Amino acid sequence: MKAVRWTSAEKPDLELHDEPTPTPTDHEVLVRVHAASLNFRDQVILNGQYGGPTKKNGIPLSDGAGEVVAVGDGVTRANVGDRVSASCNPHWVGGPMQAEYHLNSLGISADGWLSEYILMHENAVVHLPEYLSYIEAASLPCAAVTAWTGLNLSSPLQPGQTVLVQGTGGVALFSLQVARMFGARVLAITSSDEKAEMLKSLGAESVVNYSTFPDWDREILELTDGKGVDKVVDIAGEKTIVKSAASCRIGGEIAIVGFTSGIGGGLPPIDILSRSLRVAGTAIGPRLNFEALLAAMAQHEVKPVIDQVYPFAEYREAYQRLASGNHVGKVVIDVAH
Amino acid sequence: MKAVRWTSAEKPDLELHDEPTPTPTDHEVLVRVHAASLNFRDQVILNGQYGGPTKKNGIPLSDGAGEVVAVGDGVTRANVGDRVSASCNPHWVGGPMQAEYHLNSLGISADGWLSEYILMHENAVVHLPEYLSYIEAASLPCAAVTAWTGLNLSSPLQPGQTVLVQGTGGVALFSLQVARMFGARVLAITSSDEKAEMLKSLGAESVVNYSTFPDWDREILELTDGKGVDKVVDIAGEKTIVKSAASCRIGGEIAIVGFTSGIGGGLPPIDILSRSLRVAGTAIGPRLNFEALLAAMAQHEVKPVIDQVYPFAEYREAYQRLASGNHVGKVVIDVAH
Amino acid sequence: MKAVRWTSAEKPDLELHDEPTPTPTDHEVLVRVHAASLNFRDQVILNGQYGGPTKKNGIPLSDGAGEVVAVGDGVTRANVGDRVSASCNPHWVGGPMQAEYHLNSLGISADGWLSEYILMHENAVVHLPEYLSYIEAASLPCAAVTAWTGLNLSSPLQPGQTVLVQGTGGVALFSLQVARMFGARVLAITSSDEKAEMLKSLGAESVVNYSTFPDWDREILELTDGKGVDKVVDIAGEKTIVKSAASCRIGGEIAIVGFTSGIGGGLPPIDILSRSLRVAGTAIGPRLNFEALLAAMAQHEVKPVIDQVYPFAEYREAYQRLASGNHVGKVVIDVAH
Amino acid sequence: MKAVRWTSAEKPDLELHDEPTPTPTDHEVLVRVHAASLNFRDQVILNGQYGGPTKKNGIPLSDGAGEVVAVGDGVTRANVGDRVSASCNPHWVGGPMQAEYHLNSLGISADGWLSEYILMHENAVVHLPEYLSYIEAASLPCAAVTAWTGLNLSSPLQPGQTVLVQGTGGVALFSLQVARMFGARVLAITSSDEKAEMLKSLGAESVVNYSTFPDWDREILELTDGKGVDKVVDIAGEKTIVKSAASCRIGGEIAIVGFTSGIGGGLPPIDILSRSLRVAGTAIGPRLNFEALLAAMAQHEVKPVIDQVYPFAEYREAYQRLASGNHVGKVVIDVAH
Repeated sequence: MKAVRWTSAEKPDLELHDEPTPTPTDHEVLVRVHAASLNFRDQVILNGQYGGPTKKNGIPLSDGAGEVVAVGDGVTRANVGDRVSASCNPHWVGGPMQAEYHLNSLGISADGWLSEYILMHENAVVHLPEYLSYIEAASLPCAAVTAWTGLNLSSPLQPGQTVLVQGTGGVALFSLQVARMFGARVLAITSSDEKAEMLKSLGAESVVNYSTFPDWDREILELTDGKGVDKVVDIAGEKTIVKSAASCRIGGEIAIVGFTSGIGGGLPPIDILSRSLRVAGTAIGPRLNFEALLAAMAQHEVKPVIDQVYPFAEYREAYQRLASGNHVGKVVIDVAH
Repeated sequence: MKAVRWTSAEKPDLELHDEPTPTPTDHEVLVRVHAASLNFRDQVILNGQYGGPTKKNGIPLSDGAGEVVAVGDGVTRANVGDRVSASCNPHWVGGPMQAEYHLNSLGISADGWLSEYILMHENAVVHLPEYLSYIEAASLPCAAVTAWTGLNLSSPLQPGQTVLVQGTGGVALFSLQVARMFGARVLAITSSDEKAEMLKSLGAESVVNYSTFPDWDREILELTDGKGVDKVVDIAGEKTIVKSAASCRIGGEIAIVGFTSGIGGGLPPIDILSRSLRVAGTAIGPRLNFEALLAAMAQHEVKPVIDQVYPFAEYREAYQRLASGNHVGKVVIDVAH
Repeated sequence: MKAVRWTSAEKPDLELHDEPTPTPTDHEVLVRVHAASLNFRDQVILNGQYGGPTKKNGIPLSDGAGEVVAVGDGVTRANVGDRVSASCNPHWVGGPMQAEYHLNSLGISADGWLSEYILMHENAVVHLPEYLSYIEAASLPCAAVTAWTGLNLSSPLQPGQTVLVQGTGGVALFSLQVARMFGARVLAITSSDEKAEMLKSLGAESVVNYSTFPDWDREILELTDGKGVDKVVDIAGEKTIVKSAASCRIGGEIAIVGFTSGIGGGLPPIDILSRSLRVAGTAIGPRLNFEALLAAMAQHEVKPVIDQVYPFAEYREAYQRLASGNHVGKVVIDVAH
Repeated sequence: MKAVRWTSAEKPDLELHDEPTPTPTDHEVLVRVHAASLNFRDQVILNGQYGGPTKKNGIPLSDGAGEVVAVGDGVTRANVGDRVSASCNPHWVGGPMQAEYHLNSLGISADGWLSEYILMHENAVVHLPEYLSYIEAASLPCAAVTAWTGLNLSSPLQPGQTVLVQGTGGVALFSLQVARMFGARVLAITSSDEKAEMLKSLGAESVVNYSTFPDWDREILELTDGKGVDKVVDIAGEKTIVKSAASCRIGGEIAIVGFTSGIGGGLPPIDILSRSLRVAGTAIGPRLNFEALLAAMAQHEVKPVIDQVYPFAEYREAYQRLASGNHVGKVVIDVAH
């Protein structure tokens, strides 16, 4: 099979290999990859800046979708021919994050999806609803599950609550779409009026252009009659966290899901105390969250926003597209073509 | 003011009185009643069969809506002119049910809404969204809040989950509407094809006629690929509970909210154990649930189903309508006319 | 290795086999068994009455402890020489029960501990605190984890709460001991004054002899100033459930963990509704609960109650001891001797 | 009655007044004050630095205990002669913090305990267990309830978990004692070896002197085998928060309960994200938490640590003692003497 692996340089490069297709043993499933998609952290690995353990010469990408072509002994959760994706952490079925899951993380500490075939433990398997194509399904495992997890991190999201999302990256758009499935009201901030229109077309009620309104937290307060939002999905970290907190109601919640603006900054503890905030760091989430997400998406026939699709041979262009920061929605590689 | 009070007979009758309008003291609010609505338990009180404490010669009805006309010293939660309703248990603001709340329950152990004016502690006040009329708002405090509470009793409801509702009474219809606001899929059972159509028009995906299919639990299992539903709102008690349990998935939940088919019957503990069910009895819910409900309804502009509206003078006819069992949705009294 | 397996008769017998010791593959761990212990359901399997899937000619017993003697590739959770036990459902690490876990359940649908060696996925491994012997540790996986799970099923147990436990079987005694570690007050019912003394010596504050007081629920109410207990761990099912409910406070909880008195009976839904009870069926619990239990036991140096220990050769006598119903605490087989 | 009230200066002074004893109206309770105690924020009010709303010329102190001497109409939660204390926010019975509770907060926005009598709504009343004196009980409402709430803020505390407490102030000592009642292991940091000994005598397993070990987070990690603690009760804010976060395990929790080292500083969001922390600001807690605390304390006969007791006439000395920072445990005023 053809597989892309990173090199062992400090700042790893990617190389295409031709290697034997693996065979499933007990409780393993072999999947013919149809599509894979990219996340911010995939680039961070190539920059040599990823904090956690990575596999030596691993196959990148935590996100993908494909068809089951062989199953090992004892497999009960999948059959040959099934259309599937996988939980990024194959053994994280339910419950809270554990350090051990980092040691077996697709596309990071275990081989990922940028390959013609992927072998996984059956614990990882999620079944795809029919209405989703492989391209669409490949966009979900990291960003969409993170959105679902983040919106329900400190307390469950409810209809009638107000959620603030930030930007037009993968997690932001999925947060918007997931919040709408929960019946919640969505406010958003972004950097341009074009992006604002796009966010509104996906269901955001109001969008603040933070280039025009650098004190966007005040605008958010005004849009909530001075009370503040129930939940913020904070994606940028350093440059947003203080204003995210200022945008929350008493008892409001911040799910920290990214650090796209930097790893510095700091939230004064008095901001958390004086308004009884709950601030939590989000891991992607267990397989049960992925399955819950798919059940909800299938019912509401929600489609992910795909920025651009590249053929397998152009995988480097896909990485460049992500690095450009010009994408809106997910960058996907059509591995089967 | 004109007020209806029950007599002190074993099976109380209702009597119209002319009496002085009360004056609010500290932290109290006086409301001009515009509408009041009836629930199953209002009739149970007149039958002399209500289990808990009732006020001697109390004013009936836990549900109503009106306009604030005077406020006592120290009131911060309401102003004259506000359009309001009230939590059935005025001091139950948040958290779990406490026995003490039964001692101060509007229309039961404290004076209720079947009167031109009602005096309440400001803790009870909820503000009405503009899109709801007083007639509509009056239908919510007991049945709609119970539906919200029941659907989130053992775990929070999520989009993509499947809920089973039973019949076309107040709590059943609100459960359907609330479940839809949460983005959930709704199945229902009812006794006629006309009612089934009505349930579908409100958003039920499939409806089983239990007259035609007495083993309706099998139909429900089939509609869920043999897995069973995530949640049942059980309203009838005696005659439904065993089939409600049989309709649940492993780990599924039953919220017991009523006993309209009788107070006998029994659910074998092995049914609960073998499928890891969670079965819980629902109290109405705290004021925060009422406010969350109103926020969600306002966002989605959901309208309650009103069966019929009676002028104040025909309050006995309203009770008869409820006793007939022919109503679909809520029976309301237009107290202002 | 020597291993006991059940036959494929309708009412299976047990047979001792001599067979090759298995070899661990990827992510597998081989454990030299030192001790194994019995639970009520182990006998139910031999009676041919077990409801769920069982392995053909499987090795019985879900509970045991031993030493890691070999590990497969990629194992990070265990090293050769580690003293370990295992989660009864090897892939249930955290979160709620899933049907799939029943398909890989030690001693039921997968090979168990009544053997000189046991092979397991590393997900199952729990590490033993030093103060526990293998004999003691072998008694924990099913009964003690069930106790921990059951006491925290509908809401977390807190110091100052009152718990009712029933009898002197494994789950009952562990429930008593676990509740004491949580700082809770424990009441108990049992059938004799000798057993009552034994329960008091383990920390029960008061014990009701239900032979003397068949209406033991009234005694429990009296011991709680008429309010009722916060939680009941119901072990007998058919003959206890109605009185268990009558022993609860408003908002109280029942964890149904067994059916030792039969699979009939029934709890009227009005009993659940009128007192806002929460009744739930308990599965054993995830590995994280086992690890939390061990951390707590280690801190408090709690020792399990061992009824009797049998050498491997006398495994049939161990089953007979359990079937006699005369045991108090756990029946253990010393597999290494 | 004699009552102390603050003046309306920017930095208010305290003045003793002789004024009529109030009379309870509906649902109100009049309490003869026996003792009152001080918290950090009582001094903050006098410094003119309190952030929230304060009553004009209010009676200070949120904490106290006394005997019910009169009750208004309709009171069901108290009788003349009852030994009682009160929830700092009289209408916060259960559930999450609401902004409205700040408007009726004893000793801040409503009259408090530094007076011979206090009038309160019956919702506020908690009954004292016999083993506690008035002096002891007066020390609990703010600091001890905050400790209970903080330790259970993001998830319930369990036996076997490890908690880090900071210093020897009221909340720190109560956190230690409450954590011990939950069966948890307690680590502590403090500024002197004498205080360390005192913390150990109350049940702390290990204490780090942060004067000797300014990088006390490393010591805490070592004491937890490099994993970090489950929970931190952070009291100092500015100067502790970053090390508090560094002391936590993956998925660990910080309850921010104070700001004794300043209102600056900041916790980088990447610290929260990279270890999936949960950081939350604690409000005192509802009355149900106070009652749960008292039930637990009564069962375990836990006594609060009282620093010093001053007669009513020396109330200024009590404030000075608190301001000195030399106190260990609670400063109490014996109002009855």
